[in-house]
Amino acid sequence: MKIAVLGGDGFVGWPTSLHLSDQGHEIHILDNLSRRWIDTELGVQSLTPMDSIQERTRIWHQETGRRIHFHLIDLARDYEVLKRWLSDNRPDAIIHFAEQRAAPYSMKSDRHKNYTVNNNVNATHNLLNALVEIDLDAHLVHLGTMGVYGYSTVGAAIPEGYLPVGIETIGGETVKQDILYPANPGSIYHMTKCLDQLLFQFYAKNDGVRITDLHQGIVWGTHTEQTRRHVQLINRFDYDGDYGTVLNRFLIQAAIGYPLTVHGTGGQTRAFIHIQDSVRCIELALKNAPKRGDKVKIFNQMTETHRVRDLAELVANMAGAQVAYLPNPRKEAAENDLVVHNEQFLELGLDPITLEQGLLAEVVDVAKKYAYRVDRNRVPAISAWTKDIAATIEHDPEGKRLKSVS
Amino acid sequence: MKIAVLGGDGFVGWPTSLHLSDQGHEIHILDNLSRRWIDTELGVQSLTPMDSIQERTRIWHQETGRRIHFHLIDLARDYEVLKRWLSDNRPDAIIHFAEQRAAPYSMKSDRHKNYTVNNNVNATHNLLNALVEIDLDAHLVHLGTMGVYGYSTVGAAIPEGYLPVGIETIGGETVKQDILYPANPGSIYHMTKCLDQLLFQFYAKNDGVRITDLHQGIVWGTHTEQTRRHVQLINRFDYDGDYGTVLNRFLIQAAIGYPLTVHGTGGQTRAFIHIQDSVRCIELALKNAPKRGDKVKIFNQMTETHRVRDLAELVANMAGAQVAYLPNPRKEAAENDLVVHNEQFLELGLDPITLEQGLLAEVVDVAKKYAYRVDRNRVPAISAWTKDIAATIEHDPEGKRLKSVS
Repeated sequence: MKIAVLGGDGFVGWPTSLHLSDQGHEIHILDNLSRRWIDTELGVQSLTPMDSIQERTRIWHQETGRRIHFHLIDLARDYEVLKRWLSDNRPDAIIHFAEQRAAPYSMKSDRHKNYTVNNNVNATHNLLNALVEIDLDAHLVHLGTMGVYGYSTVGAAIPEGYLPVGIETIGGETVKQDILYPANPGSIYHMTKCLDQLLFQFYAKNDGVRITDLHQGIVWGTHTEQTRRHVQLINRFDYDGDYGTVLNRFLIQAAIGYPLTVHGTGGQTRAFIHIQDSVRCIELALKNAPKRGDKVKIFNQMTETHRVRDLAELVANMAGAQVAYLPNPRKEAAENDLVVHNEQFLELGLDPITLEQGLLAEVVDVAKKYAYRVDRNRVPAISAWTKDIAATIEHDPEGKRLKSVS
Repeated sequence: MKIAVLGGDGFVGWPTSLHLSDQGHEIHILDNLSRRWIDTELGVQSLTPMDSIQERTRIWHQETGRRIHFHLIDLARDYEVLKRWLSDNRPDAIIHFAEQRAAPYSMKSDRHKNYTVNNNVNATHNLLNALVEIDLDAHLVHLGTMGVYGYSTVGAAIPEGYLPVGIETIGGETVKQDILYPANPGSIYHMTKCLDQLLFQFYAKNDGVRITDLHQGIVWGTHTEQTRRHVQLINRFDYDGDYGTVLNRFLIQAAIGYPLTVHGTGGQTRAFIHIQDSVRCIELALKNAPKRGDKVKIFNQMTETHRVRDLAELVANMAGAQVAYLPNPRKEAAENDLVVHNEQFLELGLDPITLEQGLLAEVVDVAKKYAYRVDRNRVPAISAWTKDIAATIEHDPEGKRLKSVS
């Protein structure tokens, strides 16, 4: 297949491109490299030393003989360029990672809120609009988030995208309908993924666009089978307060001998998936495309759930570190249960890598190995969700509150 | 109260500004005048001879001694200018009409789809973002549309915004929740109003913004008490295929001796409200603001429903015209029932003007009076909803198919 990977230079986009190239697909990465620019803006960098996209694809060719093509295109801003590229190249499938993906970054300031809404909505809409305009029946696979569900406000098991409801008609009958699971986003970033869902629903219904939406949990792990083949193929590893996931920040804190910082009680339950499973899921989604006229196919792309404090204990025990509890900058429930249906991928043959199995490799091969590159001031999460919350959190540019251990 | 009317130069914005100014409120119109530019783009004009906003406000001052202030600001593009204006002026309430409002226009081409998404999403998000940023607790009243409900796919009575559903928890209990009524938009325009709903829900929950969303039916009628006071205060009357409502186009066809064109079977049922009732509803909404921390208050702003073919017969009988049936350029159910709850406004004292009462005045005082200004080629609706539908509708630039009568 000819596959366009939008955002193929990013954390999941890059290993996905390698995985699919390795299987013999013709891969075209379209990326505006905004994630690299944001590193520059924030003054942070990947823990792992990461090469330019041009150099990475050169190494991949040198190691495997396969080519990954790179095209510098801004989906959100350059509709006409995107349309022409799609029209000239007519890919069979499109994998869409090309959105600003960090909740804390989306809440940093009014400028960051506007950027996230503008970039994400326009990237997705430009793409859908162009597919219809040039009459291209490519399968669109989009990376969404478990966060569209708002992490189970009522403690219900989260279905794969749709909720069956009964609506009473004028005549008094009850008609069953599958509706999009009610959106309850917790940040501007998550909200844009809810907006995406409505765009997908409309274009699938009105124009028959074939769409798969993957509601992904927190991705952990650094290496995949392909990124291990050469040191310059390494994936990015974010640990800063904006882009670093909770698990990555625990790993780094342990590696540099700091206490692990838990925000709030640590009773928040989160869904996780290993990067290797993530790319396998995308492969499975590509092989099981919806038919023209089908509603949007939604998978929950996650394999296990953990409470944040349990995760902290797990890493602390493995690495010999302590745990510290800090105020929570997010507006969210202190404690929540989370049960997620993910039968669709399991039925398609996914055999998950568990945290128990894979975590030690992260501690040793990644966090400890590259610990010398850590900028300690960048570890705390500082984006507050509201002005009230911001006022309660002491300004702490040097990360001193990391040192208070409970 | 000091009230900002965003889009106050438009069809409902202008009479709303006059009505509220007449009651002694301090009115500031913020508008980018895009609706006038779209007239220029399409080569159409209001049936009624409409003055510039500067001239209209001058006449209003001359007739009443009251001032309406006009500020040329583009909400969607000029976030910083909007923020500064709000910060300097700190209105008590904001009425938000500033969106591209025609479904056919939103479906004309890929450029029009992008424009509508971009303009409407950014206008609404910039506004919400700025309110939070400058900590302004103004009541935001937004003009939404009945179209977010998708015109009752299952033939259910449409509640005022929220649907009660039962969600089964992990523990096996059923928890009742009021969710936003499942969105089922029929065009890009309608979809943007569904996106707005999610933006409102998020900002009400996260930041306590006080929001009322008015899900409006098709607005008919031209004059309000205030627009009648001087010929230069007259409201716009659109009859072209993009911006003219079904009723306005019937009125014009009757006035120029053409058959009334019904698309499809005419079995589509639509909700209607008179412009005078529309401005009264906005006044009622302003007087009944939600409290900080409340969820978004949603009203259905409509007073009666009619099938399109019944409406055609009503106008045809009143004006002595015939009815013609044409292919439908929209993707929609051929026939639908529509029952809408609107008890909230009725309980607040709204006493509706019915079509039976008011329609003759439209036929005589507006359509026949200004019939000499009609451009006959502009009456047909030509924006097709999909490429398949476009292919089945004969290109007919001179409106010849208007002449086939069934």
